[in-house]
Formats: sequence, structure tokens, C-alpha cells
Amino acid sequence: MLVVMQEGASEESVQRVIDRLVTMGFTVHRSTGVAHTILGGVGPIDDFDPAGFEVLEGVQECHRIVSAYKLANRRFRPQGTVIEAGSVRIGGPEMIVMAGPCSVESEEQIEISAEQVARAGAKVIRGGAFKPRSSPYSFQGHGEAGLKMLRAAADRNGLLVVSEVMDRSQIPLLCEYADILQVGARNMQNFNLLRELGTVNKPVLLKRGIAATIEELLLSAEYIMSGGNHRILLCERGIRTFETATRNTMDISAIPVLQQLTHLPVVADPSHGVGKRQLVGAMARASVAAGADALIVEVHHDPDHALSDGAQSLYPEQFGDLMKQLRGIAAAVGRSIA
Amino acid sequence: MLVVMQEGASEESVQRVIDRLVTMGFTVHRSTGVAHTILGGVGPIDDFDPAGFEVLEGVQECHRIVSAYKLANRRFRPQGTVIEAGSVRIGGPEMIVMAGPCSVESEEQIEISAEQVARAGAKVIRGGAFKPRSSPYSFQGHGEAGLKMLRAAADRNGLLVVSEVMDRSQIPLLCEYADILQVGARNMQNFNLLRELGTVNKPVLLKRGIAATIEELLLSAEYIMSGGNHRILLCERGIRTFETATRNTMDISAIPVLQQLTHLPVVADPSHGVGKRQLVGAMARASVAAGADALIVEVHHDPDHALSDGAQSLYPEQFGDLMKQLRGIAAAVGRSIA
Amino acid sequence: MLVVMQEGASEESVQRVIDRLVTMGFTVHRSTGVAHTILGGVGPIDDFDPAGFEVLEGVQECHRIVSAYKLANRRFRPQGTVIEAGSVRIGGPEMIVMAGPCSVESEEQIEISAEQVARAGAKVIRGGAFKPRSSPYSFQGHGEAGLKMLRAAADRNGLLVVSEVMDRSQIPLLCEYADILQVGARNMQNFNLLRELGTVNKPVLLKRGIAATIEELLLSAEYIMSGGNHRILLCERGIRTFETATRNTMDISAIPVLQQLTHLPVVADPSHGVGKRQLVGAMARASVAAGADALIVEVHHDPDHALSDGAQSLYPEQFGDLMKQLRGIAAAVGRSIA
Amino acid sequence: MLVVMQEGASEESVQRVIDRLVTMGFTVHRSTGVAHTILGGVGPIDDFDPAGFEVLEGVQECHRIVSAYKLANRRFRPQGTVIEAGSVRIGGPEMIVMAGPCSVESEEQIEISAEQVARAGAKVIRGGAFKPRSSPYSFQGHGEAGLKMLRAAADRNGLLVVSEVMDRSQIPLLCEYADILQVGARNMQNFNLLRELGTVNKPVLLKRGIAATIEELLLSAEYIMSGGNHRILLCERGIRTFETATRNTMDISAIPVLQQLTHLPVVADPSHGVGKRQLVGAMARASVAAGADALIVEVHHDPDHALSDGAQSLYPEQFGDLMKQLRGIAAAVGRSIA
Repeated sequence: MLVVMQEGASEESVQRVIDRLVTMGFTVHRSTGVAHTILGGVGPIDDFDPAGFEVLEGVQECHRIVSAYKLANRRFRPQGTVIEAGSVRIGGPEMIVMAGPCSVESEEQIEISAEQVARAGAKVIRGGAFKPRSSPYSFQGHGEAGLKMLRAAADRNGLLVVSEVMDRSQIPLLCEYADILQVGARNMQNFNLLRELGTVNKPVLLKRGIAATIEELLLSAEYIMSGGNHRILLCERGIRTFETATRNTMDISAIPVLQQLTHLPVVADPSHGVGKRQLVGAMARASVAAGADALIVEVHHDPDHALSDGAQSLYPEQFGDLMKQLRGIAAAVGRSIA
Repeated sequence: MLVVMQEGASEESVQRVIDRLVTMGFTVHRSTGVAHTILGGVGPIDDFDPAGFEVLEGVQECHRIVSAYKLANRRFRPQGTVIEAGSVRIGGPEMIVMAGPCSVESEEQIEISAEQVARAGAKVIRGGAFKPRSSPYSFQGHGEAGLKMLRAAADRNGLLVVSEVMDRSQIPLLCEYADILQVGARNMQNFNLLRELGTVNKPVLLKRGIAATIEELLLSAEYIMSGGNHRILLCERGIRTFETATRNTMDISAIPVLQQLTHLPVVADPSHGVGKRQLVGAMARASVAAGADALIVEVHHDPDHALSDGAQSLYPEQFGDLMKQLRGIAAAVGRSIA
Repeated sequence: MLVVMQEGASEESVQRVIDRLVTMGFTVHRSTGVAHTILGGVGPIDDFDPAGFEVLEGVQECHRIVSAYKLANRRFRPQGTVIEAGSVRIGGPEMIVMAGPCSVESEEQIEISAEQVARAGAKVIRGGAFKPRSSPYSFQGHGEAGLKMLRAAADRNGLLVVSEVMDRSQIPLLCEYADILQVGARNMQNFNLLRELGTVNKPVLLKRGIAATIEELLLSAEYIMSGGNHRILLCERGIRTFETATRNTMDISAIPVLQQLTHLPVVADPSHGVGKRQLVGAMARASVAAGADALIVEVHHDPDHALSDGAQSLYPEQFGDLMKQLRGIAAAVGRSIA
Repeated sequence: MLVVMQEGASEESVQRVIDRLVTMGFTVHRSTGVAHTILGGVGPIDDFDPAGFEVLEGVQECHRIVSAYKLANRRFRPQGTVIEAGSVRIGGPEMIVMAGPCSVESEEQIEISAEQVARAGAKVIRGGAFKPRSSPYSFQGHGEAGLKMLRAAADRNGLLVVSEVMDRSQIPLLCEYADILQVGARNMQNFNLLRELGTVNKPVLLKRGIAATIEELLLSAEYIMSGGNHRILLCERGIRTFETATRNTMDISAIPVLQQLTHLPVVADPSHGVGKRQLVGAMARASVAAGADALIVEVHHDPDHALSDGAQSLYPEQFGDLMKQLRGIAAAVGRSIA
């Protein structure tokens, strides 16, 4: 904690800040310069609002110098974390691809999808049974019936299952059918959900909110980890900016930034990142080149008739071709794809 | 639904789009121009993803021409809606002020606060018992004990209570103690929560998400309304932009925009809108001048020691002075404040 | 300048940073804590890139503690600056309104406009002779002929003239015809233009760029002031965000923020701030309530046939009505409007 | 041009819109649906403000259906454009790398830089002689002396020169010394500069403004092209978002989006895109994987003592290693790098 006093701040106001810091348990180092007095507070408390100091009389600005996340911090495990889910290891030299439709629509659809993505090299099938939709009048998913179809199709094709949990009450159901529980972008700060996921014995794929900073994403991971579940996959899936040519602006730089700040593996979602099929390939390639540990891609056997996200779903042939290119890029950056 | 075909799109691709529209239940009007063929679809379906058409061969762009929200639409009730909560009417000629601390901290704190804000002219006391915090290590609220204190203090001072509900499971508890249920910005798209609030017989104060468009805010209101609860207060509380001088950028223009698009009353939250006490007054004044139907303001009897949001809480005297100014501005725009 | 070293940074890396700071002319204060070493540098240099330190080995983060602008800083003139232009004083108790069409289109148009806005209480007429347009195929303004018409109409109606200068080479021409030179949002960081304006003996109305932080706006003012011209009016006119319901998002909070950071007067431009006529009134009212020192508003005698910005121009009657409301609001916040 | 009338718009208001369209030279197609009347206007005019129609009585919304840029449009040259500058061809199968320091600082610095980047495979040296700096107190470049050093170093090492022009008046000087004229992000809408560059016989590297949409970038290219100079290189260099972990958010998706919309080659600038050396490599790799036609990278022989942008400049060894990786990625996407 650093507090920079204003030029000419009175000794009284400096003392008031020191008293306040001491009350909060900080040891205070004072450095008196020509223009500014600087107070450095070292203490046991890492979570407090620096804004609370900035409005004190005589204070110019404050900075927290210890990050508010600890378990998610790279320093906690400098060598990085490899997350195991079944036979799949995410965060190691092999890049993992998760693929499948946006929603589970029917037994036939999901069986075809599973077969196709497995053949192309995916290790995990994705598919939503509970769908967060902006409009109450949109298709909301098949619920447990959808999860059953997804599980069966995955098992027949040697795949793991990742699927979204939208509410605390759905966790037991998801744990029964899925290998990895996904938290969607809109729920990244649903703290009750996060807290409960801390007690679950399944990896969690945590998507970045469309307006979440990278630090906030790490704090949300910390919520889950502080409950005991350390198996978190962080997912970049596009942020909201002024640009309207794409559905979101995919922040590819989040991949290397996260790899510096945290030991957790990073997943890239180019489908939601851009929202248009014809751009997904380029963004998937970019993600692999930037160092992503895994990809999650929407593929549909008949995207023109998909019940959701058809516009950003790849045709199966496109996905097959893409996987070939990705293998070349992965090799160029010292990784492999099955 | 409008589909604009590309210049030189083949007759085959035009027919394919027409077939698709007809299958979806649309009646199609075709307009063939020199450069572009335009297809206008009129039909029973209002919720579909225009992006699904934009990726079809030969299509240049699509536009939905019927808004996806209906019950929240101004046309549904052109004269505007006045929401009644106890003896308070929001959306009429009288502007309502809700005020109080960020969190309920102690019996003494909330009693002092209630007394002070009531005296200054507030009609509703705010105070959180369940706090959504970015960090798992922050104060998370006193839960039911907090709600009890809040209710008691409100009753002693003739105030109504507005308090935040963070999760579906908390709804019964909140209904017991609060007059208005608040949905926080982070939960604006927690659709399971919204759906459940549709069945509740209490007004809901729905805050705009920090990256939510005005249309998305209205769609979230629609979620609640489609369940039968039409008593929604929409709240502007700042959006996230590149500017760092303020905690958020308060979008004052959302007030008149909402008043054109919807019949629901609009509440302004200058405290979260800017996040710094010394700016709150100016933004409260601006909100009233722009036509807000109500304000929600953080006031704390001792903000320097508040457990949360102290930096943006007004001192009681500041709040009293502000109320006087607001009365002058309200009068200048044809409104009154008690 | 504050440098926070990483936990466990080697003594060698600390020394390297100290050496570097000393070489740059800083006096260094060292504060060694349990976890972090903090270096405080006090020195004559205020403009340097903190990022240059952040990439040094062992450094966690850096903060500049002296603002990079000095002449524009509130401390330079704590009592505030009143800018005089002809008989008009901006920044004092009287709020000034500037109004007129987007572009000077014809002698008749500008004469009618001048007469109408003067009658309603405006003191300055606005009108562009050189128009920055996103497309090369749009109307680009009448140049000197336009300026002549503007000057004549202003003189006949006792108004001052504010008009935009787009390029260094146009400065002499603008100085001949205008009382206040406007720098448009797109030119806020046209540093060659700013530098040249520092040598001019006319007030400059400097508009905030659509993606400029408040600090960058102040640095651009500093460019002009460092050349000797201290008569700067800072103008908020909307920033670019994700919201598409309005042309820009008008950052009303910039008004009180600027008034804390700088002694220069603040002008609000609600017309560009929102871009739609039906919202301009609400934003003008909000600007006055938030404390703006002046307003600049687009008014056109026949906006449906305006050559530019018709959609955001008020009808003369609307402007007249608005002025009446603004007087009431100004009075409520202790200001007056003629 | 499409005009969608509101539900229940009167026949009178429909006629008024038709009359207005006809006056502007449009042929109007009318399509009357159950709820909405839609007017399709086909005409010779492509540049007008749809907002002007949206404020007419009875109008719900308008859409321009012909893009406002023509010469830059992919349809104008569907096969793509290869820009020749000296012996270098940008936009063909070979990816071109431009590299060098942010500013030309000294003869020694630029000679070392030129030698190092040429050896690693760059074909063009970058270096600024005129520097746009946010603060008036920062190093502003060596001007013509800098250009001379840059030219000499380039010639000795078989490189071309790209350097920034900040003002119309500098064009002749830049033309004398540089092979490619760069327009910086802050000048992307300096229309007087763009117009003048339309008359120049040199390729222009046009950088995207930090808040510019892709469409606005193309309109700025159109400004230059409409003057006769069709040799434009479009450059993505990061946009401004809410994220502060990086200097800008590099919009990698702009690369494939531009390649669909325009025939002009696309250059990626990972150095400004992220602003931190340790992230530049990942973003350069991502850019090549996403299909960029060229890269422009900041390299400095001693970045710790650079006069500007040291934090984002690569060490020469890093640049050499990066070039090797880029060759592997280029091969995986069917391109080559010398």
C-alpha cells in the first residue's frame, strides 16, 4: 500500500493517514521528499479499497502493491499448473481442443457432432443444456435431457464433456454428467455460484466477462480456489469495445498476460471472440500462435439450422481443415496437438 | 426483418434466403433494385439471431425491425408507468430519493443513517445485507441479521427498504424484509434470478450492467416482466469505459433514452456512477436535470470507517445540502421532491 | 516517481534501478519493507515513460506522482481562470451559451441563425467553414467565404464568433474572422496545430478527443499554454463507448473532474455528446446542473435540410424553450444566464 | 438506403419521407407490411447521414446499404492489391517485416539498428524523425537531421525507409528521405493531411486510430485514394478499451476483417498493440498466424536507454529469435518470410 500525499499536505493530514494505516494493521514507512510525502504501508491486509484513502484530506493517490489474488498468482506455483480431467492434461506441452455445438439440440445432432470432432482430433465435446440468452423468448436449452445425450455421445466417441452451469442449484446435475463445468461470461461475477464451485471436485472452465479486466478474472478464479478447488481453466472469449464489425473484440494479448500473472492454464474461445464463422479460423490460429493451452470451438453439423450461435459455428469440414493448420502452428511454437 | 443481398447476388441465393424466411413463418416482400435486392420479412417471430442470416451466401446484411422486448416497450404503455411501493409512487411528478449506506454494518450505524436520510427527505433507505465483492477476502455482508436491522430502522423512521438479492435462493428472505428488491449490475444477466423475480409480488430495482447496452437492460427487464411482475425500476449506475479518472462513466444520456424506449421509471445512481464522494453531488444534480424519476445515493454517518464504498458515500450534511439543491433543479424541470 | 520492486527482487536489481534514477537526475528515497522494496524518486524531470522502468528486471510497477501538466494544473491558479473574449467572460458566475449551425451554408441561413440565437440569449455564434468529415465525398465547408458570412451575421447581431481550425495553415484566416478558435475532437492530438496555437492571441476552444482521457485533454491544453497562450476553454463532447443508442456517450462527470484538476473553464457540447435532437435538451440541462461554465449547442433554422449534423440540431423554438429551462437550473446552482 | 417506418406511422409521414428521398435523387421502392412500411431508396448518392432520416416524424430506423468507401472496397479489386515499394512487394505471398527504433536518436544508434534488423531479415527500417508526444515536454524528434541518418543507414544496409509525417508541411521532406510515409494513429482523421497524401507518389502506411472503427479506417484510406494515390497499407496497432494490463488492446480480428472488406494489404504493429516488450513476441506470432501481410516491430540496440518507447522495443537478439519462429508460423499458413 502506497499513499502519496499532495504537495503541501499538512503534517496533521499526514498523521491522520498514518494513524488510519496503523489502525488497519499496517507498518508504515514514511519518506519525506521535497514536494511529496510518501507513506508505504506493509501489512497483513491485502484486500481493502484504495479509494477509501484517496478521499482523505491531503491524499493525492494510493496504490495497492500486493495483488488481491494469491492462490491464482503465478508466484504461488511458478512452474505452472497442469489440470487433469480424465485422461486429458491441460497446461502441458500438448494443446487440447474442445469442440462441439453451442446447444445440445437432439440425439442425432450431438452424436454426429461428437463423431466428427473426435475424428478431427478434439478431446472434449462442448454443448449447452442450460443456455443463458439475452431474450426470454429464445431457446433456453434441453436441461437434463440434453446433458444425458451429451454424455452418451461423448462416451461413445471417447471424449470428455464440458458444459455450462448457470446457477448454484444446477451444480449437482452438472457434476453427474460433465467432466468440466463451464462458468459463462455473464456469470463470471456470480459470487454465490463461484463460492459453491470451490467445493466441487471437477475442473472449472471460467470465462472472462465481456467487461472484466484480467485482474477481475483472476479474482473470480480466487473465489473458487479459496474454497478448495484449484482446478481452474481461464478462458478468453472476447471483450466488449466500440468496434461493431465483430460480435466482441477478442483480446489475444490476454493469453500471454495471463501466462505471466497466473499459473493456471489459458483457454481461447475464438467462436465467441468474433462471432462470425469466416473469422473463427484466423482467430484460432492466432490463439495457438500466442500460446493458448487449449481452444474451445463451436462446430455444428448443420449450422444453417442451429438453434443458437449458428453464425459462428464451423462446418465440420472447416474444423477438420483448421485442425491441420493448427498442428503446423503448434509445432512452430513448440507445442503439439493430437 | 430486413435482408439486404449483395450486389450481384445470384437468383439462387436470393431464393434460398426467401425459402428460409418462409420456413421460419415470415411473409416475404421482395424489392429488386439496380444494385441490391432487399427482402422484407414480416412474421410472428421476433427473437432470432440476424447473424444467422448474415453468413448465408449472397447476403450483405440483416436488420431486425421489431424490437425484441415488448412488455417493456414504451408502446405497450405510452403514458408511462407509475410504480407503487407502500405509500411511495415512482414515475409520477414527484421525484423519489433513496439513500443510505452501502452495507448494513451495525444497529447503531443503520439507525443513525435512517434517521438522517429521512430527515433530509429520502423516502427509501438502501443498505446491503448480501454484498457482491470482487475479492473473496472482502466483507460479504451480515445476511439476515443485517436485513432485520435495516427493516427495524426503516420502520422507526417511516422509510421503505431497498436491498440487493444476489441469488435465487435469497428471494424469500428479501421478500420478508425489503419493499423493493435490487438486482445488482453484475447480476443483470443472471437469467435464473430474473426469471424467478418474475413471480414475486415486489418491485424490482434492476441495475444496468457495466457493459450492458440499453437494449440489453430492457431485455433483462423483459425477463422479469414475462413472468408476470411488471413493477420494474431501471437504474443507470455507470458503464465501463477507457476513462480512469472515475470508477465508471455515468451515462446520463441513458435517462432520456430510456424514457423514449420504455414506460418504466428510471432511477439514477450517482454514487456508483462516479465512485468518488466529491463528484456525487454534481452527478445527482445532472440526473435530476436530465429527468430521472428517482435517485439512489450512498450516505454514511462516518464514511471514513465504512466497511465498503466509503469513498463514494456522502457525509450526512453533504446529503442534506444536496437535497436542497435538488429541489431547486427539480422545480426548474417541472418536478418536485418531498 | 515511485518504483515498487517485486517480492524477492535481488539487491543487484534494486541497485540498477537506483543508478538509473540517479542518472536521470532523481534523488532517491529507499524504503525496505518485509515483502517489497519501494524507491521514491524526486527530481526535476516530470515527463518520462514509467513503462520504461516497468520492464527493468525486478521491478513490479511504477507510478508517476507528479502530473505531467503544470500550467493547466489547478494548483497553478487555484482561484480559477476567467477567459475574456470581447465583452464575454467565460468561467465567472455567468454561464455563456454558444449556438448556431454545424456548417455555414449560406448568407441567409447564417443571418437567420444569428438573429434567432441572439434573441434567445446566446452570446457567441458557432458555425464551421472548414468541416472535418469522415468521408471524402461529404460537404467540406465553404472556407473563407463561409467565415465572411459568419462574421457579418455575428456583427449585425452583437455576437462573437467561434469556428474550427483544421490545420496549421488555416490559423491566420481564422484569426481574421473568429473571436475563438475551435480545435475539433479529431485534432486534439494534432500537436503541430496545438503548438502553433500557442503563439496566437485568441482564446482556443479545445474539444476532447472521442478516446482521450481527461489527462490527455489537459496535456493537449498544456501544449498550447506552453507556447504562451493561456486562454483555453476545455470542451466535453462525448466519448466513444460500446453503447450505440447514442452517437457518443457524453461524459458529464468530466465537468466536475476537470474543475478539480484544472483552473481552465469547462464547456459542454450536448449536441455532439449525444447526436440526436430529442436528447440534446436533457443533456444541456444536465451540463448546467453539473456546473459547466459554458454550453455550445447546434441550432439550425431548418435542420431537416441542413448540409451536416441536421439530426442533432435544435429547431429555433426548441432552443428558445431550452434557454428558459436552463436559466432556472443555473439559478438553482448559483449561476446566471443572460 | 432503407427507411423502416414506425408501426402505425401515418400515410402523411410516409409520403414526406418518400418526397425527401426523391428530392435527394433516390428511386424509392415501397413495401407495406402488416406492422411496418419499409422504403428502399436506390440512388446515386452514397454519402449522407442516415441520422438525418431517423429524426423525421414516423421513422423508426434507417440503414445505409452501400458502403461509403468505394476505391478501398474489396469489390473494386477482388484479387487484392500488391503494393510495390522499391524492390519490396507487400500483399503477395511473402510476408514483409519492418523493424527499427521508435525514434532516430543518433547516427550510431540507427546504423547499429539497421545492420541488426537487416541481418535478421527485415526489409524496411522504421524510425521517427518527427514524434507525436502526448506531453509538450517530451523528446520531439531530430527532424531532417534524423531523416538523413535514417536514409544513410538504410542505404548502407539495403533497406527501405518508413517514417512518420505529422503535418502537411512535412510531406516534401519526408518524400525526399523515406520510401513509405507513415500516418500515425492520432492523425488518422487529419483530413487535410490525408487529402495532400493523395497527390504523393509514395506508399502510405495508415495506422488505425485508437478509437477508430474499421469502417472509419477504410474511409480515411478512401480520402487518400480519392486524390489518386492508391498505394495504401492499413495498419492495426491496438485500440483503446477498459483493460489496463496492456497499453492498448490489439485487435487481431481486424486483420481477417480488413482482408474481407478491402483489397489493401494489412500490416500489424504488435509493439504499439501491447506496449510491453515481453508481450510483443506473442502478438507478432498471432498476427502472422491471423494472416497479416506485413509486420512493423520496434527494435532498439539498447532499449533501456531509448529516448522513447523503450519499454516496448525488443532487444536485437529477441528480434532475431522471433524472426525464426515467425518463419515457421508463416510456413504453416502458406506464406514465407525472407
